[in-house]
Parts: sequence; structure tokens; C-alpha cells
Amino acid sequence: MINISILGSTGSIGTQALEIADLFKDEINIVAITCNNNIDLLEKQIEKYNPKISVVMNKEKYEILNNRIITKTKLKYGMEGLKEAASIPEVDIVLTAVSGMIGLEPTISAIKSKKKIALANKETLVTGGSIIKKLIYENNVEILPVDSEHSAIFQCLQGNKSEDIKRIILTASGGPFFGKDIDFLKNVTVDEALKHPNWSMGKKITVDSSTLMNKGLEMIEAHWLFDVPYKDIDILVHPESIIHSAVEYKDRSVIAQLGLPNMKLPIQYALFYPERKENNMESLDLFKLKQLNFHKADISTFKCLDLAYKAISIGGSMPTVLNVANEIAVDKFLNREISFLDIGISIEKLMEQHSPFEINTIDDVFYVKKWVEKKITELI
Amino acid sequence: MINISILGSTGSIGTQALEIADLFKDEINIVAITCNNNIDLLEKQIEKYNPKISVVMNKEKYEILNNRIITKTKLKYGMEGLKEAASIPEVDIVLTAVSGMIGLEPTISAIKSKKKIALANKETLVTGGSIIKKLIYENNVEILPVDSEHSAIFQCLQGNKSEDIKRIILTASGGPFFGKDIDFLKNVTVDEALKHPNWSMGKKITVDSSTLMNKGLEMIEAHWLFDVPYKDIDILVHPESIIHSAVEYKDRSVIAQLGLPNMKLPIQYALFYPERKENNMESLDLFKLKQLNFHKADISTFKCLDLAYKAISIGGSMPTVLNVANEIAVDKFLNREISFLDIGISIEKLMEQHSPFEINTIDDVFYVKKWVEKKITELI
Repeated sequence: MINISILGSTGSIGTQALEIADLFKDEINIVAITCNNNIDLLEKQIEKYNPKISVVMNKEKYEILNNRIITKTKLKYGMEGLKEAASIPEVDIVLTAVSGMIGLEPTISAIKSKKKIALANKETLVTGGSIIKKLIYENNVEILPVDSEHSAIFQCLQGNKSEDIKRIILTASGGPFFGKDIDFLKNVTVDEALKHPNWSMGKKITVDSSTLMNKGLEMIEAHWLFDVPYKDIDILVHPESIIHSAVEYKDRSVIAQLGLPNMKLPIQYALFYPERKENNMESLDLFKLKQLNFHKADISTFKCLDLAYKAISIGGSMPTVLNVANEIAVDKFLNREISFLDIGISIEKLMEQHSPFEINTIDDVFYVKKWVEKKITELI
Repeated sequence: MINISILGSTGSIGTQALEIADLFKDEINIVAITCNNNIDLLEKQIEKYNPKISVVMNKEKYEILNNRIITKTKLKYGMEGLKEAASIPEVDIVLTAVSGMIGLEPTISAIKSKKKIALANKETLVTGGSIIKKLIYENNVEILPVDSEHSAIFQCLQGNKSEDIKRIILTASGGPFFGKDIDFLKNVTVDEALKHPNWSMGKKITVDSSTLMNKGLEMIEAHWLFDVPYKDIDILVHPESIIHSAVEYKDRSVIAQLGLPNMKLPIQYALFYPERKENNMESLDLFKLKQLNFHKADISTFKCLDLAYKAISIGGSMPTVLNVANEIAVDKFLNREISFLDIGISIEKLMEQHSPFEINTIDDVFYVKKWVEKKITELI
């Protein structure tokens, strides 16, 4: 029996992880679940899975739920609750499936409690990569990537050595605006940005996919996860999202992981790693697909991807600036306060104004967060 | 230092293996080389590599070479020579790169001498699969596939378990006559059959590629190499020959190996396995390729592939009949004695006339060989 804590159980990854738990009832035990605001769904999940601890990030929502629910679950709120859910003694795996850099602190708690980390939150490594890597080493814990691309790379690395990697080929669907030019992007609406061609995901990551920032964050995450220099990570636009990513080794052999676009496979792989369990998912049928296509990413139009490469090439606190600025800008775009192209423009301006320094502690990350929050209000 | 015996050093795989040896001079030592008839090239190879033993299969050619060469190499001939080259005490790896079922006996000698087998000769497993499997188990030796497809499958299996395989996806270029109908195939010439779109190989395997018998033999070889039922091996026509093959696991994850069509990569992988060594080969560029295509194999037009599935489904001596009949028929086609379509027709007739039995010893294989040789002359 695997005991799991799901941070972000009401989101896209969280709900799919619970479906995996339903499929493997006798093998997965849900010990903790958490949500940000969605207390209605959390309430249903509490009734169904009867977890030991449940957490609502938003204190007001917590109070509403706490007043109306009668359950044996220990109901908590806020970051302290999240950190507690991440470090329950009997938990084996913590699935970090929250959205944004809010994942950083509970992930650190989980690592310090020597949990395996199933990581579906790329902002954790983008903002605090150097801290996380050090902690992982010190606590000798395993990070199991859940993002489909990083799961693909991780699968392609099985039976091979990291030091034999020549480059990582990180595939990208290209998002809903693939092939479009700046003139088109000027007038993009929130609804248009939220229509992803292949994947059904949360709002923040869907907008990130439309700006290609998502691929930039994934590139930075891959750099930290697999110890590969950013220069050796190539982005390959592959609109069908069938090759989820690949690794070229120094003997020029390329190992790729393919499958239908379905997040349940990487979630299941991370939870049961190294076991591969039979499931009821549809098989990939290349006959039916007939064709796979490949293109270069257009980094002059999609500025965010270019900024991600710039941030990681500068290093230190710059990727944190990139990420925080992006989180705020995407939020403002979703609230219709700024335009689609303003997302990249504001991030670029903040990066220009920032004097990078080394990130050694979580306080360094929060200092950067505050700096960006202050600066961005001056900007927008 | 890896000590290698190359059976078939003047053929396509053999010469490329020697190029690998040139590239890794300090790590590969050539202990034995052998040829069928090409004594001029063998003589040059003897001068360059100074092997301990050199073998010429053809006795007359051997005598010509023996009379004109002054060398320290021990010059031998015939099957006894081949078996000796396969079992030299100091040899670590025997690369079986001869063409046709002539590879069976020396491979058995090599296994009994506990050598690692780098297998580039699919006829060995097709005709004597049950014998070889038993010997491998008894002698605890490793078979390292050299065929690009089997090397791909082998690479896709690293870090995974054979029992987790759902199916093998064996890719096929489709050969020079992909998309053609029976009317076209009626008038195919030897020269046309020898023009393979992607791979430069020996004559026998090139004709086998044009009839799709090569894919049938590979399917049977894959069945023996990876313990996968023939029903779980799907043929995927992929004209670009970039995905060299793939494995679908029971969790629906597909791991594929990709690369430019270049036999040196699988040869190098087999020789240095599990190490991946840096080389000077060109990297795969999916941007440049732009597109990969997939089709179903046309088994009603390309009868040979259908016959291979029939032979393995019957089992026992039937795949041996298939292979021997094919070797003879291809030889007759190359000598312009029979037409292109006659290859499949003669194999089919022989299979119909054969009463299958279990193959337990090499004598059983030779009995089948003689039976086919006798029957086929009555037919053609």
C-alpha cells in the first residue's frame, strides 16, 4: 500500500491522481488532500477518501467548510496546513500538484521529512532549484517528475546514465497560437488563450502554454531535474503531442517516450515507479495518426520562451524573477487587466531592472518575490 | 580492451564493425575475421588488423589466398574454420555478421564457449531459435542484437522488464516497392529489387527487404530475442526509417529508439553495451526531417510477410522451412532463374507440403534444410 498526500487535489492533476487511486484502490491510500479555494469539491473528496488531513489554503473558505462539515478528517488551513500535509509520518509520496510557486515551501517540508516527491509543480524548481537540489542530496530523496515531458525524459533515462546525455529534446505542442505572428497576438483574448489544442489543464498553465512560457519553465525544470546545461535542451515543436520528449545520447541514439496526450500515464508512472502497471487507457495507434510533424519554436514572436533561456543563462535569482513576474502577469491577463503581449513585455522589463544574486535560502526567494511584486505594480 | 571475432568481416556489417574498431583503436582488438569468397578484401583486412585467425569459407578461394599471402595469421577454411574463429579462448564478443543460416553453427560454438554474441544474423534465430534459446540459458551468455530494429527494441527495454511489454512495434521502411500492387511486382527486375531507399546492405537482405520477408524474419527473431508472442509484434511501415522500433508497455507508455539510418550505431552499442560511447556520427535533426509517416503493411500484396506470420504461428520446423526456402528462392531470383513473385510462391508451396515437427537439435535443422533443397528443385 502506497500512502499518498496530494497537494492540490481539486486541480487537474489532483483529480486525475484520485482517478488513478480509484483504479488501484487496493494499492493507493489517500492520507492528505488540499485545495486552494474549491471547498465544494474538497468536501466531496473528504467524504469519498476519508483522509487523515485536509487543507484549505484560503482561510475564509476554510472557515466556511469547517462550519458545515462533520468528518473525522483534521481540517487545516494556509501554508502551515500545507506543510503539515506534506510531512505526515506515514506518507510515502507527496504529490505536489499545486499551481505556482506556492509549491516551494511544502515541497521543502516533504523533502526534509524524507518523502518521495512526485513533482507536478514546475515553479518549485524554477524559483528554488538550487535550494531543492541541495536538500534532495542531503536527505537522499527521489524526485519523480509528473509533467508529461519530464516523465518522458525520466522514462527515456531508465537504464541509461545521465552523464551520457548529449541533449534533451523537449517537445512542445506549440499551443493555441502556433504559427501566429505578433499582429495576431496583439488582440488575443483570455478565452482564446484558454483553448489548448491537446491538453486539458488548469488556467495558469494553459495561458503559459499559449505564451510558450510553459516550455521555458519546463526547460529550466529539466535543467535542474536531470543536471543538463540549458544549452543542451532543445525545444521541438510537435503539434500532435505524441512524442512527449526524448533524450539524445552521446552515441547519437535517441530514446523517445510516446503516448496519447493523457496525464494519467505520467501520474501513474510517478506513483508506482519503477513499476509499470496495466491500466485501461487507450493504446497509441500510429497507423491512425499517420503522421508526426516537427517545427522550430518561434522565439522572436513568443518572447517568453526567449526570456526563459535568458533567465537561466544569467542564473541565480533571475529565473525566480522570471517566474514571479510571469505568475503576476498571467493573473492580471486572466483578470483582463493587461493584454496577451503585455505578459512578456512586463517580465522583460523586470528582468532588465533586476540585479541577479545567488539564491541560497528560501528567504532569498521570498525577497525576490516581494521585489517583483513591488516593481510590477510600478510598471503596470 | 574488448577482443572481438567478426564472422563475415567483408560484408556490410563486418566492414562497418571494423570502422568502429578503427574509431576505438585503443578499446577494440580484432582477434579473428572471416569471409565467404571475398579474399581480396580479407587479405587487406589481414594486413591491417593482423588477426590471430582468418577464415575463408570457400575452400578454393582459401587455397588461392593461402598460396599468395605471407602472414602470421592462422589461415583456415570452411565451417570448421568458422567454428574455430567463434570459440578462440581470449575472445570476448563474437559478432555473427554472416549472411543466411550459415551463421547457426558458429553461433552455437560461440555460445558453448561462453562468448557474448553480437547477433547481426537473423537466420540463426529463425531456423534454430529453440536450440539457441536453450543453449543461451544453459551457458548463461548474453545475446546483443545488432539489427537496427532489434537494437532499438533492446535499447527501449533498458531499465524496464520484459514481462511489462504489451507489444513490440517493429518498424519497416516498406522497401523499394512500398505502395506497389501485384501487377507492378510481376515485372520487377533484380536491379530494381537491389535499390533500397534508406539502407545500404548486402544483396540477400536487400532482396528480403523488397519482399518484406526481411520484416517477417525480424518478427520471428524478435519473438525469440525478447520472449514476446508473435501476436504481440506489430509491423509499422515508416518510410523514413527514423524510428527504428518501439516497445509499448502495459501502462500504455511507448518507448522508441530513433536515429539516422546508420548501422554503425547498433554495432557500436552491441560491442560496448551497456556503455554509450561518444562518436563522430551525425545527430538526428527532427526539424530538418519535418515529418514522420506511418502506414499499415500490405500483407496481401507482400505475401512473404504473411507467410512469416503463418510459419511462426505453426511453429516447430515451419520457420526453418520458410527461411531455407527463402534463401534458395532469393538466390535463384538473384541468378535470374525465377521472377520476383516466384519467391513468395515457392516458399508458400513448400510450407504447404511440409509436415511440421519440433526442432530439438541442429540435425533437425539440417534435415529440414535438405528436405527443402530437394523439394524446391522439384518445384522450380
